[in-house]
Amino acid sequence: MSLITLTTDFGTKDHFVGAVKGAIYSELPNAKIVDITHEISPFSITETSYILKNSYKSFPDKTIHIVGVDSELSSDNKHIALELDNHYFVCPDNGIISMITSEIKPTRIVEINIHDRIESSFPVLDVFVQVACFIARGGNLAVIGKEVQTFKKMTEIQPKVSKAQNQIIGGIVYIDNYGNVITNISKKMFQEVGKGRRFKANARRYSFSKIFTKYNEVAQGSAHDSIQYDGNKLAIFNSAGYLEIAIYRSNLGTVGGASTLLGLQYRDSVIIDFINDTQPDFTPLT
Amino acid sequence: MSLITLTTDFGTKDHFVGAVKGAIYSELPNAKIVDITHEISPFSITETSYILKNSYKSFPDKTIHIVGVDSELSSDNKHIALELDNHYFVCPDNGIISMITSEIKPTRIVEINIHDRIESSFPVLDVFVQVACFIARGGNLAVIGKEVQTFKKMTEIQPKVSKAQNQIIGGIVYIDNYGNVITNISKKMFQEVGKGRRFKANARRYSFSKIFTKYNEVAQGSAHDSIQYDGNKLAIFNSAGYLEIAIYRSNLGTVGGASTLLGLQYRDSVIIDFINDTQPDFTPLT
Amino acid sequence: MSLITLTTDFGTKDHFVGAVKGAIYSELPNAKIVDITHEISPFSITETSYILKNSYKSFPDKTIHIVGVDSELSSDNKHIALELDNHYFVCPDNGIISMITSEIKPTRIVEINIHDRIESSFPVLDVFVQVACFIARGGNLAVIGKEVQTFKKMTEIQPKVSKAQNQIIGGIVYIDNYGNVITNISKKMFQEVGKGRRFKANARRYSFSKIFTKYNEVAQGSAHDSIQYDGNKLAIFNSAGYLEIAIYRSNLGTVGGASTLLGLQYRDSVIIDFINDTQPDFTPLT
Repeated sequence: MSLITLTTDFGTKDHFVGAVKGAIYSELPNAKIVDITHEISPFSITETSYILKNSYKSFPDKTIHIVGVDSELSSDNKHIALELDNHYFVCPDNGIISMITSEIKPTRIVEINIHDRIESSFPVLDVFVQVACFIARGGNLAVIGKEVQTFKKMTEIQPKVSKAQNQIIGGIVYIDNYGNVITNISKKMFQEVGKGRRFKANARRYSFSKIFTKYNEVAQGSAHDSIQYDGNKLAIFNSAGYLEIAIYRSNLGTVGGASTLLGLQYRDSVIIDFINDTQPDFTPLT
Repeated sequence: MSLITLTTDFGTKDHFVGAVKGAIYSELPNAKIVDITHEISPFSITETSYILKNSYKSFPDKTIHIVGVDSELSSDNKHIALELDNHYFVCPDNGIISMITSEIKPTRIVEINIHDRIESSFPVLDVFVQVACFIARGGNLAVIGKEVQTFKKMTEIQPKVSKAQNQIIGGIVYIDNYGNVITNISKKMFQEVGKGRRFKANARRYSFSKIFTKYNEVAQGSAHDSIQYDGNKLAIFNSAGYLEIAIYRSNLGTVGGASTLLGLQYRDSVIIDFINDTQPDFTPLT
Repeated sequence: MSLITLTTDFGTKDHFVGAVKGAIYSELPNAKIVDITHEISPFSITETSYILKNSYKSFPDKTIHIVGVDSELSSDNKHIALELDNHYFVCPDNGIISMITSEIKPTRIVEINIHDRIESSFPVLDVFVQVACFIARGGNLAVIGKEVQTFKKMTEIQPKVSKAQNQIIGGIVYIDNYGNVITNISKKMFQEVGKGRRFKANARRYSFSKIFTKYNEVAQGSAHDSIQYDGNKLAIFNSAGYLEIAIYRSNLGTVGGASTLLGLQYRDSVIIDFINDTQPDFTPLT
């Protein structure tokens, strides 16, 4: 039995997803197919990168992940298959694995070259399914294409650290279902750079000097009437380990969320200033 | 083989659903996972309650239902696992099973206490999956937590019957994909209280003296031109057995549905007045 | 193991889809259920027809397709089960298989008559599931109902060809996730009528004299800076083989797509004029 996941920007209305699943079952009747998502914003490499990073790990080893976002073949946009952290990915070489590869190096990458036989405007159906099923049957990556050593990296997605190690300059990479805005600043980086110092995290005109680890800590000490904290803003390291700015129990459909209420958008910068308490002119933060 | 269903407010874009499924397959490679829905309005207990009530029954006995809506652990919001009507539910104790338990008592409820080891802002992934897989492997509820006798009930969701048994005061609990508005008044309650009497059902300024059982009864007798009835309003006992106010062949994306055309909203009251025909001052209803 | 697909206008929030899947697993624990889509616009026969046409073929032979769009039973809207191209369909007789049957004749059609026992406002759950599971277990169509020779065809969906074979008058039948508008004019028809002649394809005030087969052909020759072509309009034979008017790398959520930017809508006509180059008064096309 093979586990194959799908991550695309196809949406769930069109025939694309059904056609892809049918093709997989035609080749591998016992496959298990799992939708990670089909709701990626069209052509969004950043969203894809964030979602893949935070979902692939919970799947069993040897899972094959098909990624269909901006996947039309061109001389500028090759198709690749790779082995990484004991998982397989079949995807375009457009940077969508950047958030994973910033932490873990691929074991092996091949540039898919079965295209000599296939000319297609629907490569997920016509190429990726074939490659995924070949891998699922135990096929060797070397048969699919020639091994390559480099792949595209989306470097602008990485946060920057100031030379003096006093500042992290990150940005908003994703807005979730609750309207919470998620940055590319990981808890790990925050701890390594911050070394326990006090800090101020700034996003537009809002600043935070505390980062929670559970949403309802914002309502702590008042367990029996936490509803009065609905709508409070907070900074949190979310379950994926990234700094997130959230509204407690928000709803984009009614009261709004952090994205709408605080006016925070994709690509906005989020800056963390660490404070050296020994500095003479220190003014207490509010 | 175990059947596990998921009902959440995660949406289908974020990595949450994919991560949860991956975790289940990692523990139980042969599980069958079924999405009931991930489109619950964020934190809506009422919607969850209505959807669970009308879907769980069609699954086979021993199905395990994971419910992830407003599930962050607090002293006010415990996690529970329960056996009910030969099904299992793993969920927060926040009232989401109220519409089921108003008719069927749970056989056994335990308060999950594996949290001593887990501190999490994503309890569905970190706790509920573990509990569900434990149950799927035949584990005993007693190992998961301590048995409790009480659980939270959402009483405001229940309709009220007047002392004289002449009136049912219900409310709108759900708006469906077609914009039809669904009340908490069941056909069973209607028949028990009404005892065959004539009635008037009132929702805002609209009233209904007939309740259909099929939508196209509104177009009855004109089978060959039923299209002229498109847009007619009607009251119906829907397939779930609840009183619903509908627009015949509505479309929220174009012409609108009952919610938009009649201005009926979640929590609006719907009142049924039963008429004792022997009363002297009876005026015929139109 | 049986493969059963679902194509409905139920949406993915309500309990309908969950209830249907539960009922299938209750009857056939080893079934594989695949969602083709549940996002059909309510009651849209045309959308259903287009999506079914382009997804069913990639599934293995003997797959059973349940179609739940405008499926309430009436004297005008019978329920049928059919065998077609080695696939089974269980659906209302309302024209939803028209785009398939315009090319391939059904092998056998029966009018489902188990309704004598079932009166329902949710026929997909109460009738179609039963019929699909019966077929999956190897049951003969003849047991489900009486064989019929005719079924409803949506003829207005077919493009028309002028007597002189100089013009195809088609229309927009579907708008996809990227806002691309898709016509009912197939590449096959285009080639058969056009016989290699030059042409002009007109949709509202836009015209096209070239039809691509890959989206990024519009950016051809400039592989390293294809982003400058974002937003260009083009005509393409899409992966389903139909003439489509697209915007290169569009996004309905941000910059818009062909439907919004060009103002093209469902049912708009798209006309192809073929040019006989021998005609004396020929003026070069731009």
